[in-house]
Amino acid sequence: MPSIKAAILGFGTVGEGVYRILQEKREEIKKSTGFTVEVVSILVKDKTKKRMSIQDVQITDDFRDILNNPEIDVVFEAIVGDEPAYTYLSEAIEKSCHIITANKKMFAKHGPALMKHAEFRSVQVGFEATTAGGVPIIRTVTNLLAGDRVKRIQGILNGTSNFILTKMREEGSSFSQALADAQQKGFAEADPSDDVTGMDAFRKLMILSSLAFGQQPDWEGVPVVGIDHLQTIDLIDASKENLRYRHVADIWLDERGKLQGTVGPVLIGENHPLFSIDGVDNAIIVDTEYLGSLTLVGPGAGMYPTGSAMIADLMHIIRRHEAVLIPN
Amino acid sequence: MPSIKAAILGFGTVGEGVYRILQEKREEIKKSTGFTVEVVSILVKDKTKKRMSIQDVQITDDFRDILNNPEIDVVFEAIVGDEPAYTYLSEAIEKSCHIITANKKMFAKHGPALMKHAEFRSVQVGFEATTAGGVPIIRTVTNLLAGDRVKRIQGILNGTSNFILTKMREEGSSFSQALADAQQKGFAEADPSDDVTGMDAFRKLMILSSLAFGQQPDWEGVPVVGIDHLQTIDLIDASKENLRYRHVADIWLDERGKLQGTVGPVLIGENHPLFSIDGVDNAIIVDTEYLGSLTLVGPGAGMYPTGSAMIADLMHIIRRHEAVLIPN
Repeated sequence: MPSIKAAILGFGTVGEGVYRILQEKREEIKKSTGFTVEVVSILVKDKTKKRMSIQDVQITDDFRDILNNPEIDVVFEAIVGDEPAYTYLSEAIEKSCHIITANKKMFAKHGPALMKHAEFRSVQVGFEATTAGGVPIIRTVTNLLAGDRVKRIQGILNGTSNFILTKMREEGSSFSQALADAQQKGFAEADPSDDVTGMDAFRKLMILSSLAFGQQPDWEGVPVVGIDHLQTIDLIDASKENLRYRHVADIWLDERGKLQGTVGPVLIGENHPLFSIDGVDNAIIVDTEYLGSLTLVGPGAGMYPTGSAMIADLMHIIRRHEAVLIPN
Repeated sequence: MPSIKAAILGFGTVGEGVYRILQEKREEIKKSTGFTVEVVSILVKDKTKKRMSIQDVQITDDFRDILNNPEIDVVFEAIVGDEPAYTYLSEAIEKSCHIITANKKMFAKHGPALMKHAEFRSVQVGFEATTAGGVPIIRTVTNLLAGDRVKRIQGILNGTSNFILTKMREEGSSFSQALADAQQKGFAEADPSDDVTGMDAFRKLMILSSLAFGQQPDWEGVPVVGIDHLQTIDLIDASKENLRYRHVADIWLDERGKLQGTVGPVLIGENHPLFSIDGVDNAIIVDTEYLGSLTLVGPGAGMYPTGSAMIADLMHIIRRHEAVLIPN
């Protein structure tokens, strides 16, 4: 039985989710792919921190321990922020490891370079978890592109913002009350500014732009507005007219074939596909030439949804390998 | 430049859609896969019928012409009904052709046998277009199954029924007026009984059941109710309370692990994901162990959406081939 050796960089919610699913689904993965997947090394910031019991795995705070282990086939990255994540993944690719990342901030900026580098080294890059958590939007757009053409992508890409807007509308909470509630429930970061200013949604939009259009618009040219200036009274008034504010990220090719993007609150009516998307869900509408309009809705974050997106990337990498090794 | 030779069985709306997309996207497909795809033969019922101009393609009313052509790699099937479609596809598999079908009636019943036969002959079966038209539900569930577990699938699987219910609610039309309108617009068949009695949705549910759970429930044990007994007044009354009737097909594992299915009209509230799905759209909600709840919404029928689903199957088959032929 062939075995795949994996390392996990970062052991917060997402990293732990990946580890847990790999343990829980060990037999199923073996059965469906013919491979056992073994986590051999986990990179943490603080080795002394108490955590769930993990056996037979090296816990290290030094990335060299992972890089210098020639056994490792695939690196899961669930660190927050640009660096050192980008450097780590570049080095992993250089050592011919496949990489699977959930790091949207890093990938919005460095995704195109990592993809090129990976192609050169004949390894694969999984980034399903960078955008819309468990919603398989990356795989879906990739598949659509094979025989169709994407014209526009718009969606609710930040679950925290959507949770806050839902709270304000439904319960009349103020923005700061709703934000505090999101933080208490673990939806928002300790520093939620990227969520509420629209920057997080913007980055995910740039990842989708690279994928769907093979390019990103000039970042400076995309207006980005958050939800932090919205008043509860405005949301409630809109609600009385059966309208709702949604925080929408939008990218499309204009009539001249130029890429245009916007991120900000939009007032929508009850027949719009985004009208009923409440709470922490994400939703994405993809408009294509042949298919028309396809909408995907699901959990935008969380240990298991995001972890499962990374496992889906791994399964895809294994299946491609298998196809190469075992022609049927 | 390697070339793939295809035959199309049936040249109604869907068959023509496949042909058109293959012509229009010839260069893109060549560029993205490295293969040219050439339609060499089309099976029609009536050779004398006037149709769009088609060059360099054999138009035949005898399936033997296709079966005895050893060049053909893949057969697109867009015939209506069980037979002769099932026999044709079995024979094509026996000749080591990949098959791609849009025939839900045939596939609900014979899908499991065709899949087994294809595995034995080492060819692939594409059936994305059998269920929910252009919505990539088959691919999405297939991908989810790799590292997750499906618990329940429910959805609006018949666009004609949904169009009729929308018309009745929005415009106060009677059932028969709305049905006539659907027929005039080309949404419903000349004989729409499978649509309005729920049989069409039931068959798609059985296809999803085989895929997601590896089995189908006893057909006799699944209650199937159509929309043909609904009164306009009931829909309008519900609408006043902000409720809507949707025709929902539903399949799930019960607490004892037994497969349960139902098909019929359901009254739902405004926060339900199916509330805002109007017109001919289809929508499917997949509940899984890790991901949670994922909803897909899109066009359930039409020349280009359904044709594009079949092309997506072809792209998948080519990519698997390519992976075998050209390890990277």
